[in-house]
Amino acid sequence: MFNQVSIIGCGLIGSSVLRCLKKNKSVKKIVSFDKNKSVNDLIKKNNLSDQVAANLRDAVTNSDLVLIATPLSSFESVIDSIKDNLKQGSILTDTCSVKKGINKIIINKKIKRSTWIPGHPVAGTENSGPDAGFADLFKDRWTILSPEKNIKDSEIKKVSLFWESMGSKVKIMKSEDHDKIISLTSHLPHVIAYNIVKTVMETDEKTKNDIIRYSAGGLRDFTRIAASDPIMWRDIFIDNSNLIIEAIDNFSKNLDEFKKAINDKDEEKLLEIFEKSKEFRKSIIKAGQDTDKPDFGRK
Amino acid sequence: MFNQVSIIGCGLIGSSVLRCLKKNKSVKKIVSFDKNKSVNDLIKKNNLSDQVAANLRDAVTNSDLVLIATPLSSFESVIDSIKDNLKQGSILTDTCSVKKGINKIIINKKIKRSTWIPGHPVAGTENSGPDAGFADLFKDRWTILSPEKNIKDSEIKKVSLFWESMGSKVKIMKSEDHDKIISLTSHLPHVIAYNIVKTVMETDEKTKNDIIRYSAGGLRDFTRIAASDPIMWRDIFIDNSNLIIEAIDNFSKNLDEFKKAINDKDEEKLLEIFEKSKEFRKSIIKAGQDTDKPDFGRK
Repeated sequence: MFNQVSIIGCGLIGSSVLRCLKKNKSVKKIVSFDKNKSVNDLIKKNNLSDQVAANLRDAVTNSDLVLIATPLSSFESVIDSIKDNLKQGSILTDTCSVKKGINKIIINKKIKRSTWIPGHPVAGTENSGPDAGFADLFKDRWTILSPEKNIKDSEIKKVSLFWESMGSKVKIMKSEDHDKIISLTSHLPHVIAYNIVKTVMETDEKTKNDIIRYSAGGLRDFTRIAASDPIMWRDIFIDNSNLIIEAIDNFSKNLDEFKKAINDKDEEKLLEIFEKSKEFRKSIIKAGQDTDKPDFGRK
Repeated sequence: MFNQVSIIGCGLIGSSVLRCLKKNKSVKKIVSFDKNKSVNDLIKKNNLSDQVAANLRDAVTNSDLVLIATPLSSFESVIDSIKDNLKQGSILTDTCSVKKGINKIIINKKIKRSTWIPGHPVAGTENSGPDAGFADLFKDRWTILSPEKNIKDSEIKKVSLFWESMGSKVKIMKSEDHDKIISLTSHLPHVIAYNIVKTVMETDEKTKNDIIRYSAGGLRDFTRIAASDPIMWRDIFIDNSNLIIEAIDNFSKNLDEFKKAINDKDEEKLLEIFEKSKEFRKSIIKAGQDTDKPDFGRK
């Protein structure tokens, strides 16, 4: 596959890639870089990388694949630091959840030494940081690659194989389609989860304590995704703001109708909404995207 | 505890109570009734009840505790059928998620033979029906009892012990407080979950298929609770409509502010919302209301 791979940013995603590559031994040399010293110390201590680079330039110099797994807001400064040191003929990729902004950055910076093949592993948990990573994170999950039309199939194939070697399934999709789909499957749900937690928290201390105590009935599902990494989500919401706002507007329009149905005691309309949702859940389970165990099988 | 207990309605909740009582052997005789023949057949086949009553009157005649676990919309007709056959000095209770409507029904029907002690086990899964029940459903979960002020402590104690014998913790709370808390911890989250599923489903077939495929990133959490029993939720939304509409209005107000923060790229405001949500999740885990395993520990 690749002789040398560099992982830039070693949080949940980056450290999971490191763990997986170490386990699979599919790459000859793994180089890592994180701007945070304590993260680098942890990588060294756990022997997750063959070389913890001292700076970004050194991190990429001889690498055939450079994977950027930093928050979106660090992307531009990372590119500035590495662009003149990228190996000629190498591939540059990432793990960001929005493609619009970073594609623009890549175009503006006129990267010539490397082929840009943006990627997004649709995987993660509510936890963040290098401690939260694990080698199986990408197993049976999808990674979406969104290369421009002019990119050679042979180059795309290399990145596909890289993710497949970590157990991921790979889908090639236009970056606009990616941003649209993910705005609905991930970004809107996160807005809503944050918003519901904010709404139920706005109360006196006594009620808040009762809410925490009796949260099992639905609320706790939302608090899980609302516990995700704040910096990452701030960046995503700002970068994909147009599509997210469109999704919020559609959501609000539907919520108004829903409210009207509740107010009018419109039993038929309510049942119709509920029956359709049940079907949708079944499709998701059938597609292998969730467990069919009641309550996610949690104890 | 009780010599004879009757369970009316044997879906997820009712059948879980039956399973638990059978396992614990804490009650001398268990009588059950369900209006659905196939449910009664399943109860008989699995020996979950000592007597499957032929009708509602027979079901309650000699019982010291009658527990109604039907959907809210069946509650009034059940009361009409049983009220003249309730055993003198018995206790009547329920499992409904809203107390306002059923309290009114009980007052209007002038129940005299039994003491009314409404109850709500805050437990359940997205599945419904007698097959979905299990003996451990109430273990370490809360049951909220909302008796009127004039009810004797000794009577309340009996119902508390009944739920505690099934592993539940018991909290006594005014019915208005119950309806308020549950409107926030359970009813609002369900409205929102249904609404988000409806919103993302409103698209062309190709996009819908992609959404199902890449749903792992947050959406699938919402589809779980949006798969709950439609009849039950229709009834709840109609019965607790005032408080739910109030909650929806607060939610919408916050969502508008959130949208503005995204639109204005107000990084500080966004981070503030996210950080607080993270804290709230921690409180819920600390209170023993959810697992701290990433992704609910699901595979």
